[in-house]
Amino acid sequence: MSTPKAAPEQLPGTAPKSAAYRNDRNHVFHSWSAQATLDPVVVTGAKGARFWDESGRTWLDFSSQLVNVNVGHQHPKLIAAIQAQAAKLCTVAPYHASEATSEAARLIAEVAPGDLNKVFFTNGGAEAIENALRMARHHTGRHKVLAAYRSYHGATSGANTLTGDPRRWGSEPGMPGVVHFWGPYLYRSAFHATTPAEECERALSHLADVLMMEGPHTVAAIVLETVVGGNGILVPPDGYLQGVRRLCDQHGIVMISDEVMTGFGRCGEWFAVNRWDVTPDLITFAKGVNCGYVPLGGVILSDRIAETFAHRAYPGGLTYSGHPLACAAAVACIHIYREERIFEHARHLGENVIGPALEALQQRHPSVGEVRGLGAFWAIELVRNRKTREPLVPYNASGPANAPMAELVSACKERGVWPFTHFNRMHVVPPLTMTDDEAREGLALIDEVLSLADRHVSG
Amino acid sequence: MSTPKAAPEQLPGTAPKSAAYRNDRNHVFHSWSAQATLDPVVVTGAKGARFWDESGRTWLDFSSQLVNVNVGHQHPKLIAAIQAQAAKLCTVAPYHASEATSEAARLIAEVAPGDLNKVFFTNGGAEAIENALRMARHHTGRHKVLAAYRSYHGATSGANTLTGDPRRWGSEPGMPGVVHFWGPYLYRSAFHATTPAEECERALSHLADVLMMEGPHTVAAIVLETVVGGNGILVPPDGYLQGVRRLCDQHGIVMISDEVMTGFGRCGEWFAVNRWDVTPDLITFAKGVNCGYVPLGGVILSDRIAETFAHRAYPGGLTYSGHPLACAAAVACIHIYREERIFEHARHLGENVIGPALEALQQRHPSVGEVRGLGAFWAIELVRNRKTREPLVPYNASGPANAPMAELVSACKERGVWPFTHFNRMHVVPPLTMTDDEAREGLALIDEVLSLADRHVSG
Ligand SMILES: Cc1ncc(COP(=O)(O)O)c(C=O)c1O
Ligand SMILES: Cc1ncc(COP(=O)(O)O)c(C=O)c1O
Repeated sequence: MSTPKAAPEQLPGTAPKSAAYRNDRNHVFHSWSAQATLDPVVVTGAKGARFWDESGRTWLDFSSQLVNVNVGHQHPKLIAAIQAQAAKLCTVAPYHASEATSEAARLIAEVAPGDLNKVFFTNGGAEAIENALRMARHHTGRHKVLAAYRSYHGATSGANTLTGDPRRWGSEPGMPGVVHFWGPYLYRSAFHATTPAEECERALSHLADVLMMEGPHTVAAIVLETVVGGNGILVPPDGYLQGVRRLCDQHGIVMISDEVMTGFGRCGEWFAVNRWDVTPDLITFAKGVNCGYVPLGGVILSDRIAETFAHRAYPGGLTYSGHPLACAAAVACIHIYREERIFEHARHLGENVIGPALEALQQRHPSVGEVRGLGAFWAIELVRNRKTREPLVPYNASGPANAPMAELVSACKERGVWPFTHFNRMHVVPPLTMTDDEAREGLALIDEVLSLADRHVSG
Repeated sequence: MSTPKAAPEQLPGTAPKSAAYRNDRNHVFHSWSAQATLDPVVVTGAKGARFWDESGRTWLDFSSQLVNVNVGHQHPKLIAAIQAQAAKLCTVAPYHASEATSEAARLIAEVAPGDLNKVFFTNGGAEAIENALRMARHHTGRHKVLAAYRSYHGATSGANTLTGDPRRWGSEPGMPGVVHFWGPYLYRSAFHATTPAEECERALSHLADVLMMEGPHTVAAIVLETVVGGNGILVPPDGYLQGVRRLCDQHGIVMISDEVMTGFGRCGEWFAVNRWDVTPDLITFAKGVNCGYVPLGGVILSDRIAETFAHRAYPGGLTYSGHPLACAAAVACIHIYREERIFEHARHLGENVIGPALEALQQRHPSVGEVRGLGAFWAIELVRNRKTREPLVPYNASGPANAPMAELVSACKERGVWPFTHFNRMHVVPPLTMTDDEAREGLALIDEVLSLADRHVSG
């Protein structure tokens, strides 16, 4: 039935390209992009903290792809576990039980805080958020949901509506009932605060005020990235998450911690909430649970929320919930985290390598407005002026307005570091297994590159 | 941080159970279910058209799990491809290219109809629908979407809102702008039609009327399962899909064919639309693309829709879009379909084995109101009365009202056939690779079981 499709041997005006490249340009539709402007790298292999392309170019991975390969690329034990499970049982329907699925759930419950004992598996982060929302709404019988500006929760309709960054705009109007509030971010305080304690107190009183205006009894859930990831590695001031927990308790609101990016060691703990000893009602996870070797995400439910669905059917599902191959990878990954003491190394990287190196960069480069982070989760916030804090490029810039950042990205890639950037920030989010030397090598190259940003500084 | 969780060695009042069973009951939250009422089978292995549990019970798979294992369970070539790709490269970020991803896209474009040449990959069916919706809205600049009653499109907020069955009810209010219409279903005609031609004509005039009342210039897309799957294997009368295509062309509306269940051979063709020689603007797929051995879904875009995003960024994405491991499984699966002439066998099964056997069942059992289907995609619609067509159980029945169907399901499982049932129907949806003998064996057992349904027939 299909008509033949021509794949040009050579794209106009370029050198001959591999079949993989041509097929990509002819047939792969990429996310978040104008398709005609793309010139992707064909990744042919990867190992540990590095990956390479067909022409032999190699990069130190300071992005962990999309902040998911926490154990690094192609970890041999993780590969072996996938191969073994593939030989055994790849897939079963979600109404069945399987050894890999139930063992993954047991291990996740074991490392989750408090009474978070049950796991609903999805394929990724957005689906995890969708299901957490539905659980909270049914548990409370309320429909409104509060989420933060400067957040990302995924790109399905519900997750997208919660998202507090421009990735939401292209999908509006979304699901009704979502209200956005401002979270703590001292460097650009929405509350004119000048100390972490003040930011904490004012952010909590803002949240309480929003609840007052929305009617707390209409609010099913407050959704928060424990440490805001894509939107800037915003580490909450001590006391903030405890305060959110208190507000939730006071009003019978479900606290949903989105740990899709932070969970499984990114912040040097199983979950970032561990750092503040806070137990949410629902945790969403994905990425680090098995490093994305096989797509997997999910929701961890407290006993109280699971109980709501003990005798009442939970009205949600997906074909691959509890996928054995994905879950076998999670089991292996959790064992790797423990056996290789990977979170210890992540904390060490943050405290002794990345943190100090970024502070030194801030000393040397006037374009560095602030550095912040923990574990293997750091941001360099670039400005044109340290006093006014004017960002190096405007919020959501593209095209010429974004040139200063685009220049940095190119310079990094040329030097062999693959960066993660967002707006006016460069994030340092390597595999948790990156060695001190690799981290120092990459950070030295970033040091060079930041001189380009310094040229835009005035005043 | 976590508190220890007790896993009872033995559930109260039951025989000792395996660790896998206990871990499942303690820690796995299952989809679409009241958790306390579950007693899942622990699947320990599977091969071809059969799977088994830890106690050695074996079932002929008449469900293909959730209608996804088209090549059967644990196909050796598919396993080998997954193992090889795992050793090579499990995951890269979606902005990269990879050989497995681009080859999967090329092959899918090759088998897709007309000018459907680009593939946006997701993890599953719901995400495919979410992205097709977003593409149609941006392409047209309109926001309204028409979808059919008696349909299922997934359980994320947008896909859920499109869904035309009770699985939507638990997640309302959903995304705004969705309008439901009635599709063709001669056995329970919404239009009081008595022939396929009349049903076709009236269903099309109903759709045109709905468009008139909604304002066709406000409608971005019409979304349809090509052959309605979960809601009853409703094969559209000849001419219907062509008519929908014409209405879409007339009003500049994007035609989205949801082939998540029908695609990749279920109906004996690459896509069910092939059967009517219709080319939609977007096709959503999942399941059969790689049989769910690794989670994968996606959208196939026509050149015209892809062109909309040539110089304008597409505002959607997900961490695992174009996942190499999942795509390598798709490449292998497409080769298997071709080399083993699997769709030819699916057509043979439908025409020479399942179809005739179901007609014979209808002769023998007064409870069988209608049988219908094609390829390896069949339904037995059960009634209490052939004249009134009163269904064996009411629409969306549960508990005691559903007892007659629950009894059939138990009887099938006891005899060693794993059925797929929905409301008052039993579907016959085995792997496309099931042998004639296996199909006959299972159908003979269903024949036995249907005598239980006959007892409820009156009049
Ligand atoms: C905090 C957070 N939540 C949700 C998501 C969505 O996850 P996915 O892309 O797997 O749908 C992401 C993805 O980056 C994320 O960072
Ligand atoms: C026609 C159709 N569309 C979409 C979906 C949703 O797919 P998934 O469960 O992979 O999200 C299904 C699942 O059964 C389906 O049958």
